[in-house]
Amino acid sequence: MSDGFTVGDYLLARLAGIGIGHMFGVPGDYNLAFLDHVVDNPEIAWVGCANELNAAYAADGYARVGGAGALLTTYGVGELSAMNGVAGSYAEYVPVIHVVGSPATAAQRSGASVHHTLGDGDYQHFARAQAEVTVAQAWLSADDAAAEIDRVIATSLRERRPGYLVMPADVAVAAVARPAGPLVVPPPDASPAVLADFTAAARALLSRAESLTVLADYLADRFGVRDEVVSLVAAGQIPHATLSMGKGLFDEGDPDFVGIYAGAASAKPVLAAVEEADALICAGVRFTDITTAGFSQQIDQERTIDLQPFAARVGGRTFDPLPMGDALAALADIVAGLGRSWPRPALSLVTDEDRAEPARLADSPRLADSPRLADSPRLTHAQLWPTLEGFLRPGDIVLTDLGTAFCGAQFMRLPADVTFIAQPLWGSIGYTLPAALGAQLTAPGRRVILLIGDGAIQLTAQELGTLAREGCDPIIVVLDNDGYTIERAIHGAESAYHDITRWNWALLAAALSGGSVRTAGAGTMEQLTAALAAAADPAGRPTLIEARLPRMDMPEYLLTLGRWAAAANDPAQAA
Amino acid sequence: MSDGFTVGDYLLARLAGIGIGHMFGVPGDYNLAFLDHVVDNPEIAWVGCANELNAAYAADGYARVGGAGALLTTYGVGELSAMNGVAGSYAEYVPVIHVVGSPATAAQRSGASVHHTLGDGDYQHFARAQAEVTVAQAWLSADDAAAEIDRVIATSLRERRPGYLVMPADVAVAAVARPAGPLVVPPPDASPAVLADFTAAARALLSRAESLTVLADYLADRFGVRDEVVSLVAAGQIPHATLSMGKGLFDEGDPDFVGIYAGAASAKPVLAAVEEADALICAGVRFTDITTAGFSQQIDQERTIDLQPFAARVGGRTFDPLPMGDALAALADIVAGLGRSWPRPALSLVTDEDRAEPARLADSPRLADSPRLADSPRLTHAQLWPTLEGFLRPGDIVLTDLGTAFCGAQFMRLPADVTFIAQPLWGSIGYTLPAALGAQLTAPGRRVILLIGDGAIQLTAQELGTLAREGCDPIIVVLDNDGYTIERAIHGAESAYHDITRWNWALLAAALSGGSVRTAGAGTMEQLTAALAAAADPAGRPTLIEARLPRMDMPEYLLTLGRWAAAANDPAQAA
Repeated sequence: MSDGFTVGDYLLARLAGIGIGHMFGVPGDYNLAFLDHVVDNPEIAWVGCANELNAAYAADGYARVGGAGALLTTYGVGELSAMNGVAGSYAEYVPVIHVVGSPATAAQRSGASVHHTLGDGDYQHFARAQAEVTVAQAWLSADDAAAEIDRVIATSLRERRPGYLVMPADVAVAAVARPAGPLVVPPPDASPAVLADFTAAARALLSRAESLTVLADYLADRFGVRDEVVSLVAAGQIPHATLSMGKGLFDEGDPDFVGIYAGAASAKPVLAAVEEADALICAGVRFTDITTAGFSQQIDQERTIDLQPFAARVGGRTFDPLPMGDALAALADIVAGLGRSWPRPALSLVTDEDRAEPARLADSPRLADSPRLADSPRLTHAQLWPTLEGFLRPGDIVLTDLGTAFCGAQFMRLPADVTFIAQPLWGSIGYTLPAALGAQLTAPGRRVILLIGDGAIQLTAQELGTLAREGCDPIIVVLDNDGYTIERAIHGAESAYHDITRWNWALLAAALSGGSVRTAGAGTMEQLTAALAAAADPAGRPTLIEARLPRMDMPEYLLTLGRWAAAANDPAQAA
Repeated sequence: MSDGFTVGDYLLARLAGIGIGHMFGVPGDYNLAFLDHVVDNPEIAWVGCANELNAAYAADGYARVGGAGALLTTYGVGELSAMNGVAGSYAEYVPVIHVVGSPATAAQRSGASVHHTLGDGDYQHFARAQAEVTVAQAWLSADDAAAEIDRVIATSLRERRPGYLVMPADVAVAAVARPAGPLVVPPPDASPAVLADFTAAARALLSRAESLTVLADYLADRFGVRDEVVSLVAAGQIPHATLSMGKGLFDEGDPDFVGIYAGAASAKPVLAAVEEADALICAGVRFTDITTAGFSQQIDQERTIDLQPFAARVGGRTFDPLPMGDALAALADIVAGLGRSWPRPALSLVTDEDRAEPARLADSPRLADSPRLADSPRLTHAQLWPTLEGFLRPGDIVLTDLGTAFCGAQFMRLPADVTFIAQPLWGSIGYTLPAALGAQLTAPGRRVILLIGDGAIQLTAQELGTLAREGCDPIIVVLDNDGYTIERAIHGAESAYHDITRWNWALLAAALSGGSVRTAGAGTMEQLTAALAAAADPAGRPTLIEARLPRMDMPEYLLTLGRWAAAANDPAQAA
């Protein structure tokens, strides 16, 4: 106990032990003593961000690529600023350990009106708030710190959701014994009997199916069963698709990959494969409004095998507990045993008669059809997305901010081993710029491409400077279309509240980075192609390409989504 | 009911009725239908900010000058981003009405996994969190919206703390009757018998006192009794002081104004007046660590009349209920009846023997004493503060961010009618830049001076663009000293974690404002004087002056505070 090893060191050892090599945050006086140990730790690098929300986003991006992330803030002001970012990690199953440096235990006991409190002597306000967006919480004391750190980190990893650790300034430097061994993360509950029952039910369903499709989504990524999903589809050459939140799970160049399923807004081959197959295996699927064009999915439960992280369903029957990985392995065995392949559904399965496009989509104006734009030399979304698709390489990390960027990018066909990061459920605009910082720091050998709107980047623009300072070299394409175009799609297209303050992106990048960010403007297809070619092999410097798009031009999916959201929000429009 | 008047209109009418002319926020699809009514409202202007935290700070700054503020965010992502700002309003008694546009009632009832939820069907997570930092909350329905809006706003005004209103997208546009009359804010509870008892006890204490001092603090400002406090001190030419949070309550050029009380770090005349007078009247005083050099105040309760917003104390006896304004009026009557004046305490009341400076202050290094700095032509804090003090004019609004800016500025002697805005209890750095936006919009005829550190401004720098867009013309002095100097004062002065990414302020201002911000750099006293002279009469354009200061130069008060905070945080240093 007396070799100078502290609670802070213990926490860092546990974080390093689960593969975390960077901690994001902002210093504050309640976490400074701990920060001494962070900067001295050979395994964990400190990455100071301009503010705490940005740091939370960075830790989330780091965790999506590296498996887990770490965030350090100060009590009250810092932790609340970060809360939206942590909530996003909770909503989308990303394990980020949020460490909060708090006033010393003595101050808390006295209820003193110290800075960063509400002045009412109640030091628990923020812990109660944070419990709404974290899966495990602890307020550390010198007596229980090691056990509580282990409990919170293990729960966070098991549930793939953020954990919250308050570390008082005195506890951070209190002596503690070194970890006796690696952190034990309890595996998901399992039952051989349940697995056997599931296997029998699944075999019965699959044996009578003439067609089969696998639909995977983000929980398959988050719960670490990507290899098992890939093995399953390989076992029978099964046609497969993902929702956009699960994009990147498959090599999208594989002949059996049919595309992105987005409910009624899916391309027809995808719609046929998912909604018309005799059997459908859903792996880690959660339907949300943004990924299904407004809950327009039509999935017949009776022909579906639905795998969730800790349980499964075959038709109407639930199998619990059943870890997703075990279920996938069982299904691969069944498929291999059936000894057949599953052809891609014929397009004729869906005819225009039996599945017309939803009326609201058919009614949508198509800006690309307007004579002005068709004849225009200006860059449009119709040109942008094929160009960007062609720019991608195997192994890239692609981040797309919710808005025009996500709505267009989700339908790009990805090369192998591309990580696709988006946040369509939580949907906090500006998230991806700091997330790119985190993603790149955990995968320094990979190329990072960030697609973000001009409204969104204004929320978090400070981290352009951090990216440059840390030697990151993302290729950032700012979709500059004069405001919040996703919201123009929903309501009040020409309303002044969608306008944003005009910024000069080249000057901004120079101001924040000491001139190390390379910039280019692209108002035409030719300019975009040239800018991308020049940026294709970044060498330690970020690139910012300003893609100037017409204010009301947008991907077709965004038009669909906007119509749905308008109807959902406004009873007067729902008629 | 059928004239098209909606719940949103009702809310706007109530906000306008309490003097609110601007609403700050960020659009999101759940608040767009309401925003149509905001932009159409002739009494309330929409001010879109770059992000929600900045908008919350702006609404807070607006409320500190104008009496109340309004903030509009979207559900989940937006409201959580704003939460740190709202918590600051709560801690420091600032009534901001936080309106959150939420998913429509039907979506909530179904528990659908719509965007900006946590995906678990529980729509109440964020309301529970926000209840920790607001004094009244309501989730509006079409049935009860008017009554609930009135209740939340009235409670917020009465308690001078933020209120939280969730307005589902459908409720915002539901029909409702126009307000039947002005909003009724219940006055504080009062009792003639309690007032009589208080008056008797106070008269007894004051009658036997040879010396008397009034010490006022921020709650006197927040609860609207500034005139009563000023009348009290005028009634007997009573020596008076404020804590730094109450700075600006008095004309600091008045001969009876003795200065800023900051516990043991006070100038000796102030220390004598406050701690040694026979009687002390505290008006709206709350002692916090930052305003008392670490709780170093020595106030004898037995000789103190302590007035709080809703109750008072004379010696050890409590009088409840007793509104502060009533108590102040009673005291003014007593003082007038006594028919004498109260001389300023002689300096000799405090000798070096009986009140040595605290050891920790005497031990502190004084960078100004170092030969290098004394001989240096570089601008130092010793030059900065007298220069800025001389720059002030009656009626200015001065905002100082917590850090070197606040620690130096609190001791400047203000001309009459200066509003001094700081946040020393909540202490969220970066707060003052957006707060300056709010402050100036509610008082367009007044000059606004913002003093902020280079670390702090990075958190919220986006609003430089909003200031320029809105035609504001603050004079912004960035104290550029290469990082978080307030934290260097506390711990690890040379640690890398206090460093920030270097920004180019002139380029930044140009990037965000289309070149409309005037900029100047000042590395010497002469340059600062020239830059201030050029900026003295802004004409619709912001000015940004970069005051380059040595990294470890700092106001003496910050050294004192840093030592205290280090000891409070780190048991190893407390010996």
